[in-house]
Amino acid sequence: MDLDLARRLSQPNTTKIILCVLDGLGGLARAETLRSELEQAQLSNLDRLAVKSEVGLTVPVGAGITPGSGPGHLALFGYDPYRFDIGRGVLEATGIDFDLGPDDVAARGNFCTLDARGDISDRRAGRIATEISSQLVQRLKTIEVEGVQLFVEPVRDHRFVLVLRGKDLGDAVTTTDPQRTGLPPLQATAKSKESQRTAAIVNEFVARAHELLKDQPQANGLTLRGFAKYPALPQFPDTWGLRAAALAVYPMYRGLAKIAGMTPLACPGGMPEQLQVIRDRWDDFDYFFVHYKKTDAAGEDGDFERKCHALQEFDGHVPDLMALGADVLMIAGDHSTPALMAAHSWHPVPFLLHSKYIREGNTQHFNEQECLNGSLGIFPAVDVMPLAMAHAMRLQKYGA
Amino acid sequence: MDLDLARRLSQPNTTKIILCVLDGLGGLARAETLRSELEQAQLSNLDRLAVKSEVGLTVPVGAGITPGSGPGHLALFGYDPYRFDIGRGVLEATGIDFDLGPDDVAARGNFCTLDARGDISDRRAGRIATEISSQLVQRLKTIEVEGVQLFVEPVRDHRFVLVLRGKDLGDAVTTTDPQRTGLPPLQATAKSKESQRTAAIVNEFVARAHELLKDQPQANGLTLRGFAKYPALPQFPDTWGLRAAALAVYPMYRGLAKIAGMTPLACPGGMPEQLQVIRDRWDDFDYFFVHYKKTDAAGEDGDFERKCHALQEFDGHVPDLMALGADVLMIAGDHSTPALMAAHSWHPVPFLLHSKYIREGNTQHFNEQECLNGSLGIFPAVDVMPLAMAHAMRLQKYGA
Repeated sequence: MDLDLARRLSQPNTTKIILCVLDGLGGLARAETLRSELEQAQLSNLDRLAVKSEVGLTVPVGAGITPGSGPGHLALFGYDPYRFDIGRGVLEATGIDFDLGPDDVAARGNFCTLDARGDISDRRAGRIATEISSQLVQRLKTIEVEGVQLFVEPVRDHRFVLVLRGKDLGDAVTTTDPQRTGLPPLQATAKSKESQRTAAIVNEFVARAHELLKDQPQANGLTLRGFAKYPALPQFPDTWGLRAAALAVYPMYRGLAKIAGMTPLACPGGMPEQLQVIRDRWDDFDYFFVHYKKTDAAGEDGDFERKCHALQEFDGHVPDLMALGADVLMIAGDHSTPALMAAHSWHPVPFLLHSKYIREGNTQHFNEQECLNGSLGIFPAVDVMPLAMAHAMRLQKYGA
Repeated sequence: MDLDLARRLSQPNTTKIILCVLDGLGGLARAETLRSELEQAQLSNLDRLAVKSEVGLTVPVGAGITPGSGPGHLALFGYDPYRFDIGRGVLEATGIDFDLGPDDVAARGNFCTLDARGDISDRRAGRIATEISSQLVQRLKTIEVEGVQLFVEPVRDHRFVLVLRGKDLGDAVTTTDPQRTGLPPLQATAKSKESQRTAAIVNEFVARAHELLKDQPQANGLTLRGFAKYPALPQFPDTWGLRAAALAVYPMYRGLAKIAGMTPLACPGGMPEQLQVIRDRWDDFDYFFVHYKKTDAAGEDGDFERKCHALQEFDGHVPDLMALGADVLMIAGDHSTPALMAAHSWHPVPFLLHSKYIREGNTQHFNEQECLNGSLGIFPAVDVMPLAMAHAMRLQKYGA
């Protein structure tokens, strides 16, 4: 739905909407059992909910397109993921509550391990602990480059954020990550004239950083990617007329929600705390975005059983989730992460919407197969918001 | 998928993709048996393959739109058939390896039979043999019209190609084929000012040709249609990063593939030779387009049984096709040609994709009904390419 039309049709109501995003929800069946993660797991609560819901499969971006977390979530928030693009650096910076200025250029950093020849032997430096990388970030903070102000901030594990602040900076800068081991970090290059000075600054920063890190056993190098400025996204609360809260443990998802204009609420403790915060702030918001990461993490690790367990753990919270009494409750995924592929994939993602106004199907279980035959069919993820708004009686009639 | 995005996301791999187009694949059920051609035919190999595949129905161009062979194939090659349009004349000329210049205007010609009043009594002149039409084309080659160079070349049966070469020619010229019998051939008229002289040249050519053909018992007239210049299509190998080969017996399909930038490989002997050429050239290409015409020919003739036989004949080649060991194997159609209609139709077309990364459904047979319930649902044919690329692990992740 066009966002101007959304703004025009949205109408006030007192109804509440909850969107639960199970990251990497969709899966693929194992050949031995012919059962996917959702089919293997015991999900009695989700199954019961599915019976009273409309179900279908969302296409996150387009046929065959494997989305990153950014486009996957943007689509669920109603943004055309082809049109709105958010750089990784911005996502990371916003996620740690770094207050990006309009001219800042942010990049996502990874500590990595370099071998004796200077080639990358581990792209994540053995996923070093946040405490260690925080100390290393302190060292990097001492780097000064003329004509620009530099900020380095730890994120989590081997990840950090670099922000460049100054005049005439550009974000058309290539990644320094060769995306595989056995190669040295790349030089940053400018994809436009306006970004040439920025690329030079980046390369100087990297050279100085490698000097400072050379005594490290694991994190003796770094890579930078996703150079980006803060995007001007139409704001979610204004577009849909919803006071929106985001409940996410991981920084990147809080960052994403914040860029869309939602209010991130702290809830480091995971689902029980996320649900408690919703209870506490029930009257302050109309829309709650709840992010659940464990499904994707297990899928990315190729751990079928652990993904089943993550699903079952979530299933255990479903009664509490339902007890909140939202008018519209949705269970969705930003993309599939089949354990069999140990990566994000393009496969459509199971989706469920519960409200008073559902058209029931024959659904007995919440899984890929039954969602395929559900009343919503296969549909673009960007349609989730208008559907939710409709079921919340928050969209006016279109046309006379 | 936008072709610029395709270019940006496509990544190298060693995987192989095969697209088999069964021309006019889709059908309609006979009232007596309630079975379509695909349901009537014994297709044990395709059925077995369908069990291990994702299936669905492709919409070639749009709801209700009956495509010609051009748009039907372009869509399967990833081109938006609304945006990219190839004139029939260009298709025919390219198919016989005529080297069209950028300013040439090509038209498809049909010999036809005119009755004593000059009305068309047979639009295909009894489908005269290629040897006869080749002789008649020799006569037409003697025609000279001032200010333009004319080329006339035989194609097959009653078909030939006319190419006009000269300055300031336009292709906005109407067909001379009234599309039914009982009417005389139409005068060519210009749809734009720039094409007025071209239309006049065409009419002069036709008048002179009718003089030269008047002694003929069957082919005493001709019609011309599909006036067109060579289109500038984004090239398939460059867009998708695939070295692409086309294996088609009929000229038009080779022509189409060539315009898209594929390499046509000679294989006049049909499926066994097509498969042998793929085997011989396996290392030289990443993508093989295989065209099978018999299904459409039987459908066009309204011959239900023959279409079933054509399907069964193809089915007999499926084990050899599978033995090639492609990473992605697709069985598709450019459009439906239900024998009941004896013509192309708009009905969605059965589609099957086999790879390691399929999400299995409950498919037991390859036919319209089961494809409707397949895991791909009903989807635009233009999505076939991104899907194939995804399953071949040749598309990078979109967005951070």
